[in-house]
This record gives sequence, C-alpha cells and structure tokens, in this order.
Amino acid sequence: MGNFAACCRGFWCKAKNPDVRVSLPAVCFVWQIAMIILFGLFVRYDEESDAHWSEHKHENNITSDIENDFYYRYPSFQDVHVMIFVGFGFLMTFLKRYSFGGVGFNFLIAAFGLQWALLMQGWFHSLDPADGQIKIGIENIINADFCVAGCLIAYGALLGKVSPVQLMVLTLFGITLFAVEEYIILHVLHVRDAGGSMVIHTFGAYYGLTISWILYRPKLNQSKNLSGSVYHSDVFAMIGTLFLWMFWPSFNSAIADHGDGQHRAAINTYLALAASVLTTFAISSLSAKRGKLDMVHIQNATLAGGVAMGTAAEFMITTYGSLIVGFCCGIISTFGYLVITPFMEKYMKIQDTCGIHNLHAMPGVLGAVVGAITAATASESVYGHEGLVNTFDFKGKYAERTPAMQGGFQAAGLCVALAFGIVGGAIVGFILRLPFWGDPSDDNCFDDELYWEVPEDEESLPPILEYNSHMVGKNTDMMSNFTVEQS
Amino acid sequence: MGNFAACCRGFWCKAKNPDVRVSLPAVCFVWQIAMIILFGLFVRYDEESDAHWSEHKHENNITSDIENDFYYRYPSFQDVHVMIFVGFGFLMTFLKRYSFGGVGFNFLIAAFGLQWALLMQGWFHSLDPADGQIKIGIENIINADFCVAGCLIAYGALLGKVSPVQLMVLTLFGITLFAVEEYIILHVLHVRDAGGSMVIHTFGAYYGLTISWILYRPKLNQSKNLSGSVYHSDVFAMIGTLFLWMFWPSFNSAIADHGDGQHRAAINTYLALAASVLTTFAISSLSAKRGKLDMVHIQNATLAGGVAMGTAAEFMITTYGSLIVGFCCGIISTFGYLVITPFMEKYMKIQDTCGIHNLHAMPGVLGAVVGAITAATASESVYGHEGLVNTFDFKGKYAERTPAMQGGFQAAGLCVALAFGIVGGAIVGFILRLPFWGDPSDDNCFDDELYWEVPEDEESLPPILEYNSHMVGKNTDMMSNFTVEQS
Amino acid sequence: MGNFAACCRGFWCKAKNPDVRVSLPAVCFVWQIAMIILFGLFVRYDEESDAHWSEHKHENNITSDIENDFYYRYPSFQDVHVMIFVGFGFLMTFLKRYSFGGVGFNFLIAAFGLQWALLMQGWFHSLDPADGQIKIGIENIINADFCVAGCLIAYGALLGKVSPVQLMVLTLFGITLFAVEEYIILHVLHVRDAGGSMVIHTFGAYYGLTISWILYRPKLNQSKNLSGSVYHSDVFAMIGTLFLWMFWPSFNSAIADHGDGQHRAAINTYLALAASVLTTFAISSLSAKRGKLDMVHIQNATLAGGVAMGTAAEFMITTYGSLIVGFCCGIISTFGYLVITPFMEKYMKIQDTCGIHNLHAMPGVLGAVVGAITAATASESVYGHEGLVNTFDFKGKYAERTPAMQGGFQAAGLCVALAFGIVGGAIVGFILRLPFWGDPSDDNCFDDELYWEVPEDEESLPPILEYNSHMVGKNTDMMSNFTVEQS
Repeated sequence: MGNFAACCRGFWCKAKNPDVRVSLPAVCFVWQIAMIILFGLFVRYDEESDAHWSEHKHENNITSDIENDFYYRYPSFQDVHVMIFVGFGFLMTFLKRYSFGGVGFNFLIAAFGLQWALLMQGWFHSLDPADGQIKIGIENIINADFCVAGCLIAYGALLGKVSPVQLMVLTLFGITLFAVEEYIILHVLHVRDAGGSMVIHTFGAYYGLTISWILYRPKLNQSKNLSGSVYHSDVFAMIGTLFLWMFWPSFNSAIADHGDGQHRAAINTYLALAASVLTTFAISSLSAKRGKLDMVHIQNATLAGGVAMGTAAEFMITTYGSLIVGFCCGIISTFGYLVITPFMEKYMKIQDTCGIHNLHAMPGVLGAVVGAITAATASESVYGHEGLVNTFDFKGKYAERTPAMQGGFQAAGLCVALAFGIVGGAIVGFILRLPFWGDPSDDNCFDDELYWEVPEDEESLPPILEYNSHMVGKNTDMMSNFTVEQS
Repeated sequence: MGNFAACCRGFWCKAKNPDVRVSLPAVCFVWQIAMIILFGLFVRYDEESDAHWSEHKHENNITSDIENDFYYRYPSFQDVHVMIFVGFGFLMTFLKRYSFGGVGFNFLIAAFGLQWALLMQGWFHSLDPADGQIKIGIENIINADFCVAGCLIAYGALLGKVSPVQLMVLTLFGITLFAVEEYIILHVLHVRDAGGSMVIHTFGAYYGLTISWILYRPKLNQSKNLSGSVYHSDVFAMIGTLFLWMFWPSFNSAIADHGDGQHRAAINTYLALAASVLTTFAISSLSAKRGKLDMVHIQNATLAGGVAMGTAAEFMITTYGSLIVGFCCGIISTFGYLVITPFMEKYMKIQDTCGIHNLHAMPGVLGAVVGAITAATASESVYGHEGLVNTFDFKGKYAERTPAMQGGFQAAGLCVALAFGIVGGAIVGFILRLPFWGDPSDDNCFDDELYWEVPEDEESLPPILEYNSHMVGKNTDMMSNFTVEQS
Repeated sequence: MGNFAACCRGFWCKAKNPDVRVSLPAVCFVWQIAMIILFGLFVRYDEESDAHWSEHKHENNITSDIENDFYYRYPSFQDVHVMIFVGFGFLMTFLKRYSFGGVGFNFLIAAFGLQWALLMQGWFHSLDPADGQIKIGIENIINADFCVAGCLIAYGALLGKVSPVQLMVLTLFGITLFAVEEYIILHVLHVRDAGGSMVIHTFGAYYGLTISWILYRPKLNQSKNLSGSVYHSDVFAMIGTLFLWMFWPSFNSAIADHGDGQHRAAINTYLALAASVLTTFAISSLSAKRGKLDMVHIQNATLAGGVAMGTAAEFMITTYGSLIVGFCCGIISTFGYLVITPFMEKYMKIQDTCGIHNLHAMPGVLGAVVGAITAATASESVYGHEGLVNTFDFKGKYAERTPAMQGGFQAAGLCVALAFGIVGGAIVGFILRLPFWGDPSDDNCFDDELYWEVPEDEESLPPILEYNSHMVGKNTDMMSNFTVEQS
C-alpha cells in the first residue's frame, strides 16, 4: 500500500518534461485524419452552397442570387474570423516572452476546434433527417468560430502554464461540451443567445477557471520575471483588443435575424462598447497613484460591454439601455482586475493569466441576466406583434410562450451554461493533470523557449542587460575612484 | 493691480502637474452619465433597426430583408470603424515612447466622441418631427465615426503635448462644432461631401492646428530625445497607415448613394491612393542623401490622395482625374513634411507632431477645390439626366440648381469649414490653456510615463544603455591599459 | 577583344552603388505620368459604376440597387486588398532589419502594379468593342489586386537582395506577362481558376525563383548576421500570416460565380486552411529537437492550403476533399522549408528568402492538378445540369465541352503558367542583372540602412550590446579580482 502510494506520487509528481516531439505531432496527425474521415462520412454542402442552388432557386421562387444567405452573413463572418485569430491571438501576446505561444497556440487550437465544432454542432443542429448528413453553409462556419471562442477564452486563464498538447485536449473536450450545452440552451430550452453571453462567455470562462483551479501551481511566482509585459508587447496586445472591440458588433449580429435583427444587434453592441471604454479609463485612472492608466485594464475591460450584450443585443433593449450595460461592465471588469483577480489567486487558488473572470465570466453572467430581464419585459407595444414573434421565435411549438416565460427560460439557460462550465472544467482539469502532457514546471512558465525556436537577440537578455547596467554603473564609479587614487 | 497681474501670472504659469487622478475619472463618469440620460431622452431606433421593420416592409412593398440599408452599408461601416480605431490609433504609435498614449487616448476620445456625435448630428439631421426624437440606423453610426475622425485629426497636431482631459474637452467642443458646420455645409448650402474633404479633413486639421498654435510650447526641444521613433515603433505605425490606406475607398463610399454612387466612389479613391504612393516615394527619395526614403513620408503622404478625393469621389471625375489628384497630393504632402512643417514650427509657432497640415489640411482644401470644379463642370451628357439629379440631389427645393451654381456652393462650403476650424480652434485653444488640465511640462512631452504605468524593461532605458555602452567601451580600454601596466 | 572583355567585366562587375536618388524618383514619376495618360486614353467606368446606372437599371429591368455587382463583391474586395497590403507586406517584416523594406517596397510595387494591371488586364478582358475603351468596375479592381499578388510572390524570393528600382521593373514585366498568361489560360483555353493556383501562384513563384536563380549571389553568407529574425519581428510577421490566412476564403471566392459559387469557394478554402495548420504544427514539431516549433513554418506553411484550393475551391470538391488538400499541403510545405529550400540554395543556386517555393510553387502546382482532377470527374449527378453548366461555364462555343475535356484543358493551363513563369523570369532576370539598378552588394543585403533613413536606437546595436555584455562580465570579474588584490 505504501509502495503503491509512493508509486502514485512518483507518477504524479515526476519532474516535468516539456518535450512534445512525439505527443504534439501525434495528436495533430491523428485528430486531423479523424476529421477527414468524419467529414467524409457526415458533412455535405447545404442547399445554398451546393451546385444545385440554381435549381433550388427556381423551386422556391427566389429571384436573385443576392438572396443567398452568404450575402447576409459573409461580411460578419469575416469580422468574427478576425476576432478569433487576430483578436484573441494578439490579445494574448502581452507577455514579454510568450507572444509566440499566445498567438501561435491560439492559431493551432482554433484551426482544430473549428473542424470539430462543425461536426459536433452539425450533429445537434444541422443534421438532415433525410440522409443523416450534416449540411453546412455560412451560418455553420460562423457557429464553428463561435464555438472555438469558448475554448480560446478558457485558454486565457491558462496562458503560459500549459503545453500545446494540453490545449488540444482542452479544445477537444471544450467543443464537445459546448455543443451539448448549446443544444440544451438554444433548442431544448428555446433560449435566445445570438452573441453568446451564456453559451460562449459564461461557459468558456468557468470552464477555463475551473481547469486553472485544478491545475493550481503553488510555486508559480518562480516564473514571476516573465509574467509581465514589455513596452512593445503591450502595443501588440492592443492590436488584439482593437480588432475585438471594433468587430464585436459583427460578433453579436452575425447570426441574428435578417433585417432589423442584425441591424439592431450591431447598433446596441456598438453603443455598449463605447460606454465600457469610458468607465474603464475612469476606474483605471482612479485606482492608481497620480491617475496613471494600466494597460491591462485598457486591453481587457474595454471589451466587457460587448460580452454583456451577447444575449440582449438583438432585443429592443433601447440605446440608453445598451449604454447602461456598457457603463456597468467597464466598472465591474476593471474592478475585477484590481481586486478580484488577486483575491482569487491568493485565497481561492485560481491563477487566471488574462483575467478572463473579469472580461468573460462576470460580464457574461451579467449579460445573461440583462437578457432575461429584457426578454421578460418585452411587449407587443414595443416590438409589434410580428416583431415579437420573430425576435423570440414564438413559432411552432413555442407559439404559446409569453415574454415572461421566456425570461424564466433565459435564466435557466444561464444555469445550464454555469453547470457545464464548472462540471466540465473539473473533469477536463483532472485529465490535464495526468503527468504526460508535457507542461512546463512552475519555474518555467510564460516562456516561449520551451515550445519554440526563439531567435537569439538582444531582446532575449533583459535580466542580464539590467544586471549589467547596474554593474557597469558601479564599475565606472569604482573605476574613476580608482584611477584618481592611482594618479 | 500689480498684485492681480502677479496673481494671474501665478495662475497661468504655475508649474505643470500632470496628475489626472481626479479630473480624468470625473470627466469620464460625468460625461458618460450625461450621455445615458440624453440617449434616454432623445435616441430611438429608426424604422430599419426597430422590431417594427417587418410591418414597415409590408407597408412599403419591400420584398426582401436584403433591402435593409444595413446590407448596403455595414461592410463599409466596419472598414471605417477600423480606420478610426486601428488606422488613426496605430498611425500615432510612431513615437518611441508615446505608443500607449497614441493608440490609447485615440481609443478613449473616439469612444466618447461617437456617442456625443450621435446626439449632435442626430439633432441636426435625424430628428423625427413627429415625436422630437432622434432615430438612428447604420448611416448614423457611420456619420458618428466620421465626426470623430475630425477630432482625431486634431489630436494628431497635439500628440504627446496634451493630457487626456484636454483631449476629452477638445473632443466635446470639436464634435459640437463639427455638427453645426456639417449642418450648414450639407443642409443649408446643400453641398455634396460624401468623404468629407471639407467637413472632416479641412475642419479637423485647422481646428487642431489653431489649438496647437495657441498652446505653443517654446521649450519643446527639451523633450527632443523622445520626439523621434524607434525601429519597431515605425513598423507599428505602418499598421495604421495601411489600414487607413486600404479602407479609404470604404470611407469615401460609405454614405454615398446606393448603387453606382458607392461603386464609383470606391474606384476613384482606390486610384487616387495608388497614385499618391508613387509620388510620395519619388519625392521622399529625391529629397534625401543617397535617395534614402523617410518613414514619416511613407506613413503619411501616401494617404493624401484619399483625403483629396473626399468630395469628388462620388462624382464622374473620371479614372485619370482621380490619378491626377493622387499624383499632386503625394507631391504636395511630402513637400509639406520636408519644408512647410519645419517652417511653420520655426516662424509661425505651430508645432504639428504628426504633420496634419500636410496630410489633412492641404489635401483637404485641394479636395474641396477639386470637388467644386468637378461639380461646376458636370453635364447631362456625362451623367445622364437622372444620374445628374441623383448625384447632386437636385430635387425638391434644389430642383432648379445648376451644376455651375453647385460649384459655387461647394466653394462656399470650403470657407465655412475653414472658418469653423480656425475660429473654433481659437476658442477651444484658450480654454485648453487653463492651468488645471494636467498637461505635461515642456521637458516632459512625448512620454507615456506621465499618464501610464509603463512596464520596466530594457527598452525603457535607451539613454542609459547607450551611455553604458560608451562607458563600457572606455572602461574596457582603460581596464586593459591598466592591467597591462599592472602586469 | 581582350579590352572589350575587360570592359564588359568592368561594366558588369563594378562595385555596387545602392544610390537610387535619381533612378527611383525617375521611375516613379515617369511611370505614374504614363499611367495617367493611358488611363485618360483608355479607361472609363463600366455600366454599374457610371452615373448612367439608373438608366441601365430601367433598361434591364433591374429592380434594386443591391443587384449592382458592387454589393456581391465589395466585402471580398476589401479582404483581398488587406491581403495584398497588410498580408504580403507584414509577412515580409520577419527579418530583423528589413521590416521597412518588406512592408514599404511591397506597398510601392503593389500601388504601381494595380494601375498597370487595370490597363493590361483591361485590354485583354474588358475592352468594350463599341468604343475601344476599357470599362472598369469592382471585378476589375479585384483582378488588379490578384495580378499584383503574382509580383509580390516573386518579391518574396528576392526579399532583401534587390533595390526598389529593380522591384519596379520586376513588377512592370511581371504584370505584363501575367495578363498575357491569364488571357491564354482563362480565355483561349477556357480554364477555370478563380483563386489563381495556376495563374497567380504557380506563375508568380516560378517567375520569382527564376529571377533569383539568375541573380544568384555567391557571397550572400556575408550578410548572414542580418538574415534572421528577432523576437518582435516574428510577431509582426504573424500579423501578415493571420490576415492572409483569415481572408483567403475571400481571395478564392472574390470572383467566383454569384450565389453558390462564392459560397462554396469560401467554405472549401476555410476547411483546407484549417487542415494545413494542424499538419504544419505536426511536421514542424516532429523535425526539431524537443519538439520545438519553428516560426518560419507557422508563418508560411499554414497558408499552403489556401494556395492549393485556388482552382478547385469553387468546384464540388467536397468538404473532406478540401481537408485532404489542406492536410497534404501543410506537410509538403513544411517539408519544403526543412529540406528543399536548403537543397535549392546549396545545389541549385536558388536563394529563396521567404521560401516561396514551399508556399506558392509546390502548393500552386498541386492545386492545379487537384483542379484538373476535380474538373475531369465532375458529373451532372453531383452538380445538376444547370450547376455543371454554370460552374464550368459550358456555354456559347464551349457548350459541347465535357468535364473530361475540361480536365485536360486545366492541365494545359498549368503548363502555360509554368512556361510563362520560367521563360519570363529568365528574361527579366537578365534585365535585372544590368549594373545600374542600385542593388546592394553581397555583404549589404537584408539591411534597411541602404534605402531608408533608419532611426538610431538601442535596437539598432545588437552586436555592440552583446559584445558589451560579455565584456562587462569579464570586466566585473577582473575588477573584483583586482580590487581584492588592491585591498
């Protein structure tokens, strides 16, 4: 028994070996081949992307090619695509020596995740009962990008502390959980969540935070010298921030209803984001000596308004309602960076590198609550009869649902997202604690050297340089004293 | 009386204190709350973004959702949005130690400005007489971004020399002046200016230059060590340049007429910009020893063609006409950087950090003149009867206006823009000279340290490092001499 | 005779003088003026961008402005435009001291090339027989950007080794060759190549490689200290990579058929690119000690799937077919960087700075083959009768062509592209060997100092700094020894 315990300890606690030369290629190859086989078995073009479209047009009296959904959604798709790869990717370049890992691993897991998401979401949402196959079009690839966003949010909590193989595993399970959670929320509960405050942000954030809690590193402060930013890495991160901020109206409107739905979702998100910026600057300045602004706040909390409008953007939340949401989120999120993140790290053993609790978890939950309230208070006088039916999709078996009931279901959706995030995160967290994933040791975190060939240059030597400049100073003084004595 | 003068002098000339811990949060909070209240009182969705859209469609025999103005303008809107936040923002990161301020304050004032612009422009242009409220849709948010551009241009002249609180004040007044000026030019004079050569660029540039003239800093050369670029900050600035350059066709076509108007505006701008690039490279190379190109020219003067096409882009200026405009602007603008900016700084006491006189003022005025000439020479043979009426909106009470008259009104519009820029800039300049705005002293300009928590890294120590490397060199020499002597 | 030979040798081998103060401005001015004259003689708006559009609408029973081709293609155009200027431009910033040249010269030659392309392509494709003039609209400017891409690919092989004047010459001839080649492939052979696997990538790559072979520099290793990257230049290059990667679906769908053609092309490209990413990471990791990833692979080989889908993207290649293409290309391209590029440099005397052989040549050829096979195996059961006719344009004099014949013509198109690239490259290569173009000497390559005013900063002194840090270390030791001895 004692032997077994020792053996276990040895197994769990053996020295970290961040060599991924076998595991990373194996995972990439095997999973990509699996994707090809599964796509071969299951995925086909839908009627709008298939060459039979011209016949479909005649049959459905569609008079013009511009009625193809492609033209409604492709510009938004490209904006969302930029958010996923440049937005999330560059937002994570802020660390002084983890920019390759930030933007590079983001690239890898997003490229894998979108394929798996097309399958998982396809089975749940786009299965053609006639032939048992998934029919994909522009809306599917937007949804695949959305699904990936959940996993990238989770990566934010773990940035610099996990291996690429762990990230692939996190993505595989994350996409799977996402698809089930989304099916329950959107289809079983018939909840509206076009921009994903619940489905994407709440789920993704609690999924990542729970994993980070389970992967707690007690000696992470040994990597402290690399856990900050340098001047230019902060400017790189602003590229990510701005592309996320600018294109968030597209994110929240991408799969909203054609016409006024997309139009209104874009305007509401635009306004909420603007308000977030002002309150973020205000709190950031208020909290520091001499009113100095903190780049971490500006890079992140300015985006909170977009997260919080994920559910309500397509509703008639009013323009000032959107501003109020953004106003509150900028405050809450900045406050989170100032108080809650340090608290969580110290007392709750949750190390959250990018502060996703402040940017995604809290605003996501708030957005779900705002959505539920807005839905519950909807009325025919505000929406018009047809508008109400269209906006909340009170059709078919949901024709009898009232706004008040809808509000209740929206709240239930939030609970589902939280449950999936926390329970799913716990399970995946334990899987990621297995000792063969190639993650770094506590004193080796936030360092690209482990997984990348890093060019040797003057910038790679910050501690030595600083050391030298001090020493040189001393040196010079001693020298001049000395030469004086000599002369 | 002497006491009073001394007191005044003390008030005006007291030592600068760049602490914005009270003023910046106060301004952000109070103004954002004011926005929420004003939006609550005045701003509603228009018929295309309201949930009653489906009823509106039936009433107006609109057969398809794709007829919603959203689908005509949203892709252009997103491009304009990128220009405002990434384009202007990154263009201003070129200084070696003011990248945070360049992109960060740009972000702040644009986010505030667009809200205030929606209100101010709404009162003048989009007020629904039926209920006294502003109805907003996609065109309003594009116009709000345009309005903000005027203030960001002005910021270019002041970059590194003002506090964020001053920028907020500049924006508040700038947007207000802009809306009035725009109302007079576009509505009272019925002038066409889709891309804003007059309304945006001429106004914004003279507004900023006049303020800079009033805020003249005689001892600015004390900050000279930070007034240049470093290698990577110049590359960052190219991100701004290129996004401005690439998306300028969207800027000039975003609110042009549906159909051929937007189509033609995009093509004309595309051509003018291409020509600007070649003449900018030519003049830049011609002016330097061994033909070496100057990044300042490439970053800025290449854009001048887009500015100068702001008025005429939607007209039948012809493809070669567009090339000629771009050709001239590249020359004029680069020449401005070489000759006029130093002249203005030395003899006219106008310190223009980004050279907005070369990029916006001169090309903007030129663009207004080109627009007036193109309008005055328009004819039915070139436009067709319907085309002429549509392009210049010779409808309703303007049905009798001839192209020649239109040309005159276009020229009058330029005068209005100039007057608003200069007079408005003078007033705001004096307001900004008040001593409590927290601006930096003359020897502290162009430095992020004042308003930002700057990460300490090797890059923040250029003078020390250089100093050391010299000292070390000496040191080593002395050392070797010394050890030789010793041995 | 001996004299003549010596004279020749003197002429060809005289010391390099990279002064472009006369030649660069002359080329820019003269060619831009020529463009203006030629545009004045030949280029007019087409019916959709002309002010007569409203009359054209009535005549053709077009009911809505949204039917203007502008609305089908403008979003894709802007994405392509970003790829040309930011994508290609920033991809070439990876060298430690050639970022200005990478992004700046890319800007210059693209801005010239698109004008010349509008003319050349216009004469071949858009000449209005009624009046002998070129009528341009949105599709023309997309095609001009495409045409430029061919020359930018060629620039990739020559990066850091040529003068801007040489690049202008390369572009002038490259565009000309491109237009002829494209005419033969698309019109004479009636080949489909919407994303240009043959027309753009194969041609551009072999054009550049042949030029590089002729301009072989035997002593290029004298510039070795500048031929690598630094940490932040690699992050800059990722901006280029990601914008190329994200917008490649727009590239391949931009001029595809309205409706299902554009829709399918975007989806297929999206999938192929995703698969490329996984296999690139796999091979990169597999090939290095401890599985460390190489930024060169990630920056380039991840894009190979987009290149290889250039021909087949609009066909019914199936979703898994797209994944298979991407899968193979990621492997081939990364393998190329590991093995073929060093081999070509050592044994074939081809110096390929960016590795365009791996990113464009091999995937381009593969894409042409895939396209030919996909076309040859097309059937009415898969496409539907109307779909088959539309996709392959089996109309008019091509009404009798069968898919099998089409496959043969596709293969013939590949041969044409190869022939034009290699023969054209050989001719242009010899022209570029003339001794008056201002190119750098072998020990001065990859250095912005030659053609740019480079700001002096700490980052420009890497060798000195490193030298110092070593010396200081020694110094300090000696010092402490010494002071001990003294005391």
